[in-house]
Amino acid sequence: MTDTEYPSISEQLDDVASAREEGRRKMDWAAQHMPICEHVREEFVAEQPFEGERIGMAMHVEAKTAILVETLAEGGAEVAVTGCNPLSTHDDVSAALEAHENITSYAKRGVDDEEYYAAIEAVIAHEPTITVDDGMDLVAAIHEDHPELIDGIIGGAEETTTGVHRLRAMDADGALEYPVFAVNDTPMKRLFDNVHGTGESSLASIAMTTNLSWAGKNVVVAGYGYCGKGVAKKAAGQNANVIVTEVEPRRALEAHMEGYEVMPMAEAAAVGDVFLTTTGNRDVVVEEHFEKMQDGVLLANAGHFDIEIDLDALDDLAVDRYEARDGVEAYEMDDGRRLNVVAEGRLVNLAAPVSLGHPVEVMDQSFGVQAVCVRELVESVEPRAADASGDEPRASDVYDAGVHDVPDELDKEIAEIKLEAEGVDFDSLTETQHEYMDSWDHGT
Amino acid sequence: MTDTEYPSISEQLDDVASAREEGRRKMDWAAQHMPICEHVREEFVAEQPFEGERIGMAMHVEAKTAILVETLAEGGAEVAVTGCNPLSTHDDVSAALEAHENITSYAKRGVDDEEYYAAIEAVIAHEPTITVDDGMDLVAAIHEDHPELIDGIIGGAEETTTGVHRLRAMDADGALEYPVFAVNDTPMKRLFDNVHGTGESSLASIAMTTNLSWAGKNVVVAGYGYCGKGVAKKAAGQNANVIVTEVEPRRALEAHMEGYEVMPMAEAAAVGDVFLTTTGNRDVVVEEHFEKMQDGVLLANAGHFDIEIDLDALDDLAVDRYEARDGVEAYEMDDGRRLNVVAEGRLVNLAAPVSLGHPVEVMDQSFGVQAVCVRELVESVEPRAADASGDEPRASDVYDAGVHDVPDELDKEIAEIKLEAEGVDFDSLTETQHEYMDSWDHGT
Amino acid sequence: MTDTEYPSISEQLDDVASAREEGRRKMDWAAQHMPICEHVREEFVAEQPFEGERIGMAMHVEAKTAILVETLAEGGAEVAVTGCNPLSTHDDVSAALEAHENITSYAKRGVDDEEYYAAIEAVIAHEPTITVDDGMDLVAAIHEDHPELIDGIIGGAEETTTGVHRLRAMDADGALEYPVFAVNDTPMKRLFDNVHGTGESSLASIAMTTNLSWAGKNVVVAGYGYCGKGVAKKAAGQNANVIVTEVEPRRALEAHMEGYEVMPMAEAAAVGDVFLTTTGNRDVVVEEHFEKMQDGVLLANAGHFDIEIDLDALDDLAVDRYEARDGVEAYEMDDGRRLNVVAEGRLVNLAAPVSLGHPVEVMDQSFGVQAVCVRELVESVEPRAADASGDEPRASDVYDAGVHDVPDELDKEIAEIKLEAEGVDFDSLTETQHEYMDSWDHGT
Amino acid sequence: MTDTEYPSISEQLDDVASAREEGRRKMDWAAQHMPICEHVREEFVAEQPFEGERIGMAMHVEAKTAILVETLAEGGAEVAVTGCNPLSTHDDVSAALEAHENITSYAKRGVDDEEYYAAIEAVIAHEPTITVDDGMDLVAAIHEDHPELIDGIIGGAEETTTGVHRLRAMDADGALEYPVFAVNDTPMKRLFDNVHGTGESSLASIAMTTNLSWAGKNVVVAGYGYCGKGVAKKAAGQNANVIVTEVEPRRALEAHMEGYEVMPMAEAAAVGDVFLTTTGNRDVVVEEHFEKMQDGVLLANAGHFDIEIDLDALDDLAVDRYEARDGVEAYEMDDGRRLNVVAEGRLVNLAAPVSLGHPVEVMDQSFGVQAVCVRELVESVEPRAADASGDEPRASDVYDAGVHDVPDELDKEIAEIKLEAEGVDFDSLTETQHEYMDSWDHGT
Repeated sequence: MTDTEYPSISEQLDDVASAREEGRRKMDWAAQHMPICEHVREEFVAEQPFEGERIGMAMHVEAKTAILVETLAEGGAEVAVTGCNPLSTHDDVSAALEAHENITSYAKRGVDDEEYYAAIEAVIAHEPTITVDDGMDLVAAIHEDHPELIDGIIGGAEETTTGVHRLRAMDADGALEYPVFAVNDTPMKRLFDNVHGTGESSLASIAMTTNLSWAGKNVVVAGYGYCGKGVAKKAAGQNANVIVTEVEPRRALEAHMEGYEVMPMAEAAAVGDVFLTTTGNRDVVVEEHFEKMQDGVLLANAGHFDIEIDLDALDDLAVDRYEARDGVEAYEMDDGRRLNVVAEGRLVNLAAPVSLGHPVEVMDQSFGVQAVCVRELVESVEPRAADASGDEPRASDVYDAGVHDVPDELDKEIAEIKLEAEGVDFDSLTETQHEYMDSWDHGT
Repeated sequence: MTDTEYPSISEQLDDVASAREEGRRKMDWAAQHMPICEHVREEFVAEQPFEGERIGMAMHVEAKTAILVETLAEGGAEVAVTGCNPLSTHDDVSAALEAHENITSYAKRGVDDEEYYAAIEAVIAHEPTITVDDGMDLVAAIHEDHPELIDGIIGGAEETTTGVHRLRAMDADGALEYPVFAVNDTPMKRLFDNVHGTGESSLASIAMTTNLSWAGKNVVVAGYGYCGKGVAKKAAGQNANVIVTEVEPRRALEAHMEGYEVMPMAEAAAVGDVFLTTTGNRDVVVEEHFEKMQDGVLLANAGHFDIEIDLDALDDLAVDRYEARDGVEAYEMDDGRRLNVVAEGRLVNLAAPVSLGHPVEVMDQSFGVQAVCVRELVESVEPRAADASGDEPRASDVYDAGVHDVPDELDKEIAEIKLEAEGVDFDSLTETQHEYMDSWDHGT
Repeated sequence: MTDTEYPSISEQLDDVASAREEGRRKMDWAAQHMPICEHVREEFVAEQPFEGERIGMAMHVEAKTAILVETLAEGGAEVAVTGCNPLSTHDDVSAALEAHENITSYAKRGVDDEEYYAAIEAVIAHEPTITVDDGMDLVAAIHEDHPELIDGIIGGAEETTTGVHRLRAMDADGALEYPVFAVNDTPMKRLFDNVHGTGESSLASIAMTTNLSWAGKNVVVAGYGYCGKGVAKKAAGQNANVIVTEVEPRRALEAHMEGYEVMPMAEAAAVGDVFLTTTGNRDVVVEEHFEKMQDGVLLANAGHFDIEIDLDALDDLAVDRYEARDGVEAYEMDDGRRLNVVAEGRLVNLAAPVSLGHPVEVMDQSFGVQAVCVRELVESVEPRAADASGDEPRASDVYDAGVHDVPDELDKEIAEIKLEAEGVDFDSLTETQHEYMDSWDHGT
Repeated sequence: MTDTEYPSISEQLDDVASAREEGRRKMDWAAQHMPICEHVREEFVAEQPFEGERIGMAMHVEAKTAILVETLAEGGAEVAVTGCNPLSTHDDVSAALEAHENITSYAKRGVDDEEYYAAIEAVIAHEPTITVDDGMDLVAAIHEDHPELIDGIIGGAEETTTGVHRLRAMDADGALEYPVFAVNDTPMKRLFDNVHGTGESSLASIAMTTNLSWAGKNVVVAGYGYCGKGVAKKAAGQNANVIVTEVEPRRALEAHMEGYEVMPMAEAAAVGDVFLTTTGNRDVVVEEHFEKMQDGVLLANAGHFDIEIDLDALDDLAVDRYEARDGVEAYEMDDGRRLNVVAEGRLVNLAAPVSLGHPVEVMDQSFGVQAVCVRELVESVEPRAADASGDEPRASDVYDAGVHDVPDELDKEIAEIKLEAEGVDFDSLTETQHEYMDSWDHGT
């Protein structure tokens, strides 16, 4: 293990043993419902594809991610991991990871900003040859502060919509200096994790934080991308009346044609009972909206950062502010209206006190893709010679610097593993059908 | 307050003050979303309909029920309350209730059987003139052990499907000696509480206990009554593949025509991922079913009693048994399969560690009906003379001994209050339309 | 066959043979998808329960009803039938029925009022011992004009919501002089025919008449009874935004909690794209509503009579009126707005040019219930002695004069036949479970 | 007008005047519900963008397409049009088009193969400078038999999934010699036309052809692309139990996670009640499947060509074959099972006798995109000089030969026009939000 001044989680806890036991129990439950990762893990154990590699990870450190971390470690990698959000770390899981000899975890819940970035630095001090990000913290820190490491990095993988968005912007500026797989953009991630994962877990988190129901509520969903579609669909599936706000006309039309009401936020503000932001953008719910809202509304965010609801403005407007329930902060207006912010406007399916993050099964899919992407990166470079120094360039022979879509075949491989695990059989094309689809000279 | 040896909750807690504060905070949140009870409370405060009455209650003592308890107390009644399930009491709410001078609460979480029934006796010792039950514990105890009180009882109200079922059986035997309103059977209760309340809160409780998702799961719903319909609808709304088991052919057909798969439990056992019982009957999932189930299934109950899943048989079959997560007990079979029981097979939306019970809004409807039913009972007897002794007969002039449907007008009144609170306006019949509906002599 | 001056359908057609062939082809298709009636028919053929009875029927005479008519005839009855709506008769089917020696049909499409009632008189001239109605035309005509026949009538069965409503009013007035089964009110009728049948066929009829789609449309459903629920559910299932109008607060609340918008018609008028009335009442859409409607709206009725949309008022408002398409009459307002009335405001799933009436399968259920109800009536009287005169009293030993619910056992029998035909198996209660449900003395 | 030996529709009809009147009435209805085309038409009338251009079209010639044809003609183009399917032409609409001086129509219903291709040749004889295809018949015929015209062609637009698929294959072979816009692939086409249009109209066509219902049916949807998703969603919305067959694992998984059953066709064959193919491929339902099917099943196709259901094989298996209803051919097996093929296995929403094609509103969206694509093509070349000969090269300055995606801005323009017409307002990004989305240097 590399030396670093920042203490690993085991060094920070009083009772490491019981934390590990509790963390292990959580991981066992997750593994029981993660057939894809378990399948990939078995392959990795047999093939040891990551022999000699160092993987740096900044992820939500809880039971499911931990299975990915272990899966990579069992493939032979030395793994250093930290959190990507100060509130999403489970210390017990973080500790349990360190039971594996190849893993160091710096993730700890509730760290302050300074500690948060120190932990990222600690991961970087391991001189990773591969980075795995959930919000591109590692990519950003390496490019900004440790450019000397870039030569030794094969590539990376990024999990989130927001991270990929920022990476693409960076790539467009010519500033991204190693290849990164946009895991977020694969069908296997977007169609399942974003739609089903975000949708179900955000709603369940809110329901179990507030004890309120969805039936008959006006639920305003800001943004109709994959996450927004998931939230809208699941809310309608609980008999809410869904109202969508959008800035892209085709998405707005898509929502309208789905049967939802579409209107500007300025209008929705006055009729909504619950507001859920999923845009990935800032200032989605702001002062002019707070002023119109009804007494007792809920405000929550299902986008990556806590910038969608302008809490500063809300705080300025409020004459009083208090904890109405665990996970609910009430802002009282001077006319007596109470606007209730769930989970401080952070990702509600991670940051609410009862939250457990995305459901196990959908993370299994995302992490399965992550795992085979990391293998793909390693397979795209010459194997490191036995006598190589750690800092020789590791440029991929296949992937240039920049954002890369996950190769379709990897994505399909994960889908096939999942279907097999679910006992779902499907058809395959006959030769004649293949030919037909490839040809173009058929008449009416 | 009546003397009784059983200590009230305030006498049992170490720090009553802080419990009361916490309980009050919970009650304030509930009240904020219970416009019906708040409306009725205002009427009761003004009218004091329960002056001189003593109301005995056995209910799930948590924030929402507490609003009903207070509402009745503020109408002038002396109220004694205890739990109707040892696991559903919130001690802080129980304590907060006693801040009201008219209320005594004996409800405490985690009491044993003896204490449970002692608390019921303590309520009965207050010699209630009205009983309000959630599972008919009070009615049963009074008829069995305190028949001398019956003369002084005006009537009662019963909240649950199961309780009403048992009361009707008792009534059919000629054994029910005072009138009881079957609150459960009103449209306002069955269509909302059972369908939306049970459905949403059961699913959210399971999701937040297990971190699993519904999308693509085979969810087996046992029973297609109101609760079963709610669970099935909400599960389908989360993209589960719903399988229904039933014993009544028309309900089975109804489920089939809704697009669900219908099959016997013996067949469903082999394909289900999650099993949710809602029948109100015993032995719905038994040994022969456990034997066929897949590894990793979830077993949960949304019916009143913990008798639907035969846990004794499961325990006999298991070679090991351990807590897989908070609220999940894993039973391991000799072939390695793990069957995971959520919340000990008790009402999952109440008994799981994260559970909050039915959503606030649907309880508001049920409790609104309860409140006006209690007023209806009181209005159906001659006002107690100022000099009356407490034990003179209080027979209702309107309602005979037996189970009574809630008068339609009361039920409608609650619907109107709710719609007004939601800002929903609706039509009314013109005179011509009234006449048309009443007449029969119109041609084609 | 009884003598009557009114000509039967065969006497009215030029080419009876080809009409019968065409009608038979339609009936064969229906029979192929009516497993319940086919099952009952086999029983009737074997048992001949209607030997010596005369059944008068006023029904929509098309392929499906024809299977019921045949089923009764094959049970030994002499059947006389006419239409219950001048636009719903298929002359070919009417003719095909007369191929059966026990059947006379007076139903003909497009008859005028005088002919319509003459045909009803022709049926009554057969001196029916049982009446089967779809809108109580026979019951009304017999009570008003042929009271002398009542003594010879065992009873009747009524198919529709509206008919049953009027019968109950008549019964309340003490004016109904023989027993009539309220087939409409059985679960097997209301839950399937009204919800699924009316819903699906009304929407498909409108779509195939107008070539318009439902996605994104504001569909205003007037009335949230069984029919309204079906229309609303199916429209939402085609991605319409459903708006419900109601006069009963609990139904209004039910719609609201389902996630629909609820508002008065006066408000809905301004935003609706399509208006569908299902109330059974008159004057549901009237002048003040027409004045607010948008250009291009559709107006259609799914209730029994063409009185829900006030076409006279619309005609008065219009400056022009023309056939915009087959089945669509455009009423042009002086400001250029065009309000399009589908199928003249008559039952849209029967009266639109492309309409085929309720789906075959749901009619199979209703007609199965009708058939066993008629058998039940016959079984409730002493068999007619061989030498009896036709006009001796035939009072049922079981059913008094008045409206009767269909006995539960008959209804369940039909459900079981259907499930068996669909290959759907279901559970049955064990003895222990039966006992449990019947008992009331079980503790928590 | 160009000379050609093939007669235009007006030359083929006996009563052109009454056909034109009837066709016009149909077109007026369509135009009333096509706000996008009406908006674009107004722009075209004002701008005359197609002055001097000749547009050749092969489309389903019915009311909606006719609005597109007119819209282009009113923009100044000389338009020659024929059908793209012998069964989809409405002769009255075809005739009505010729009332416009710029339009010649060769489309006639029920032509044989020879006539079909002669009509295509007749269109080509007009020497189009732009082609608009629905199945790439024009592109194919020009490339194969009239390569000399290619130099004079600016480009084309293709409407269908299948056409685009074949064009891409042709492009991959380097065989496509002018630019063609893949209209089918735009969000505005795929998300609305394919999902809502195909879904709703296919189901309504089947329902109104068979008089059967969807509730409780096992509906097997072959293919889970955009069309398949639409069919599945709309069938589930009518309470069918949807079963999906797929060959692509991610789509199979997507269907599974939606809550549908996924299985190979060989398995689905035995349980399906209705089979709907949407794959665009051949031999989807074949002999081995027919052998397993239940009596009374329906077989229908919603894919472009009638090759998905192997009717030859079915005919070979059948011992009898007859018209069970208009639009339904029954194939009787030797064991008595009847397999009912709807609309001869051709596109069911076009080819069934009652069919009206895609709903008006969704075609409005597709045709709006078509119209602005054609304008885009014209704007991408130098304006033709006043004295230019008709056959000088017209190469686009912007678009190379090959398949081109519709520029996003055009697609969005159509969405905005539609939203405005529907009265739906939506948000736009603030400058700060724009900047945020473009930047990447924001911390957690």
